[in-house]
Amino acid sequence: MFDKIREIFDTEQFSREPRQLYDPIEYTLRLGGKRIRPYLLMSANRMFGGNDEQVRSAAIGIEMFHNFTLLHDDLMDKSPIRRGKPTVYCKWDENTAILSGDTMFALAWQYFLAQPSPRLHEILSCFNQTAIEVCEGQQYDMNFERTDHVAIDDYMMMIRLKTAVLLAGALKIGALYAGAPQSDTEHLYQFGIHLGLAFQLQDDLLDSYGDVTVFGKQTGQDIRDNKKTYLVIKALQTAPADLRDELAALFSSTPADSDAKVARVRQIYDQIDIPAQVNEAIRQEFLQAQSHLDSVRVEQDKKAPLADLLASLSDRKK
Amino acid sequence: MFDKIREIFDTEQFSREPRQLYDPIEYTLRLGGKRIRPYLLMSANRMFGGNDEQVRSAAIGIEMFHNFTLLHDDLMDKSPIRRGKPTVYCKWDENTAILSGDTMFALAWQYFLAQPSPRLHEILSCFNQTAIEVCEGQQYDMNFERTDHVAIDDYMMMIRLKTAVLLAGALKIGALYAGAPQSDTEHLYQFGIHLGLAFQLQDDLLDSYGDVTVFGKQTGQDIRDNKKTYLVIKALQTAPADLRDELAALFSSTPADSDAKVARVRQIYDQIDIPAQVNEAIRQEFLQAQSHLDSVRVEQDKKAPLADLLASLSDRKK
Repeated sequence: MFDKIREIFDTEQFSREPRQLYDPIEYTLRLGGKRIRPYLLMSANRMFGGNDEQVRSAAIGIEMFHNFTLLHDDLMDKSPIRRGKPTVYCKWDENTAILSGDTMFALAWQYFLAQPSPRLHEILSCFNQTAIEVCEGQQYDMNFERTDHVAIDDYMMMIRLKTAVLLAGALKIGALYAGAPQSDTEHLYQFGIHLGLAFQLQDDLLDSYGDVTVFGKQTGQDIRDNKKTYLVIKALQTAPADLRDELAALFSSTPADSDAKVARVRQIYDQIDIPAQVNEAIRQEFLQAQSHLDSVRVEQDKKAPLADLLASLSDRKK
Repeated sequence: MFDKIREIFDTEQFSREPRQLYDPIEYTLRLGGKRIRPYLLMSANRMFGGNDEQVRSAAIGIEMFHNFTLLHDDLMDKSPIRRGKPTVYCKWDENTAILSGDTMFALAWQYFLAQPSPRLHEILSCFNQTAIEVCEGQQYDMNFERTDHVAIDDYMMMIRLKTAVLLAGALKIGALYAGAPQSDTEHLYQFGIHLGLAFQLQDDLLDSYGDVTVFGKQTGQDIRDNKKTYLVIKALQTAPADLRDELAALFSSTPADSDAKVARVRQIYDQIDIPAQVNEAIRQEFLQAQSHLDSVRVEQDKKAPLADLLASLSDRKK
């Protein structure tokens, strides 16, 4: 299916006048990426007998929306690099990033509106609810940067909004286009939520513990950035007082020798079994995802693309 | 009708969690403004026998979208004040302005999706097309800042996209909700286009020639900012070579004594009859707007709210 998705994006024309507005959009869409949301949308659609043409435009729409959020997030986070290339606000400027992003959000709607369906109102409402929640997730993420104490539940809520609901929405929308019954669209939605949560927890773990040769980027960046991830939140919650205080101090510092800081934080994590705890949390999310997939009432072989994805993600090293 | 609109916005709740995201939205919507787009939408709806409840949510949606564009425009233009109050990026920060704006765009869709209609697809497509064009208009506006030569036609295209299409879209959407025939929705759309063009040309004229005691703000700001408006574009096009060169030089300068610059520019404008030319262009737009209103096939008294608006705008001094 990834071949089909690649073909869709390769043949779609994103640039037009004014070039200053659309060139950054084309640039962003051509950077590639895993196209996981179109994959989820099309998999769910095929599962209920839909054909790819029926959701071609919606698949572009969901990826367009995702790329819009990346573009604005990169600007807000002042991230200079995405997928090995300069981000739009760096390659062009901040105003270009704002306005091209806004336009991508509008274009996402255009793609959805171009895809007819008797259940279009339900589809658009799902997409809209998802879009609002993604914005709320990004806001909570920014809030947490300025908060000393973040609870695990609040962190899970944040990553659910920022990451998981869009995967869930992609699945539900794909199923709706194929006319799936409501209980099944709901199970697919929940499958996406737990898949998304597992995926984000893996990201947190790989950032601190990934094999740098496989992971493809420097590990320990979250620690260097004092980013509040599942790991440090869990560690602050479970560590004995002396280690907790030391960890809190480390996460308020930006020492010149950041390698020493990363090493010491990892030492503390290891000492209180953080990797094992995170792996267990990830395992639980994958189990819940599997359980919701099992509950979808279609033949087993129709579930293969999503079951395969689940299997490959649960084993991912990067 | 403005009382009805005020009541709608006074009773609508905009704030919720997370407050950091929704407080700036509530703040923006509470700043007031003329609410001209809800007025147009509701007027067009009433004209075809619609009732206000039928478009309450859409009226909020169109104003929400308009305020989203103002919020992001103020950030891109680095404008510190809007309606006498600090703009969101000044009162909060740039990231808040980006993300609250994005959320307002999503909320606009939510309001439209909440308003049922058998013609909802047409309504949403019109709104979406409008949204994309408004983004394109803002891009052309920014492009023109960095361009030496702007043609009158290009300028008219820019203000059509940036300003006029949203007024036109508000009218068409209101009429669609009431089930108006296509030829009438098209005439209302064109009425809105010409109304919007006239309105923007008036803005350009008032900025240089408004009575400061009526206009309510310092005149000559466009000249001080070297802003390419209809006036200077027309003047550069029609002035004899020596005045044209002097004008071009003045619009490349930012002298300490900006009052002298404003006075000299106005002197040149007067000498080549720019005010009369702009007034004539405005008159032509109003005539075309009137002609499209005349072509709408409903009884004369049903057109009163839009005819009254046209009359009051053609006489406006601020």
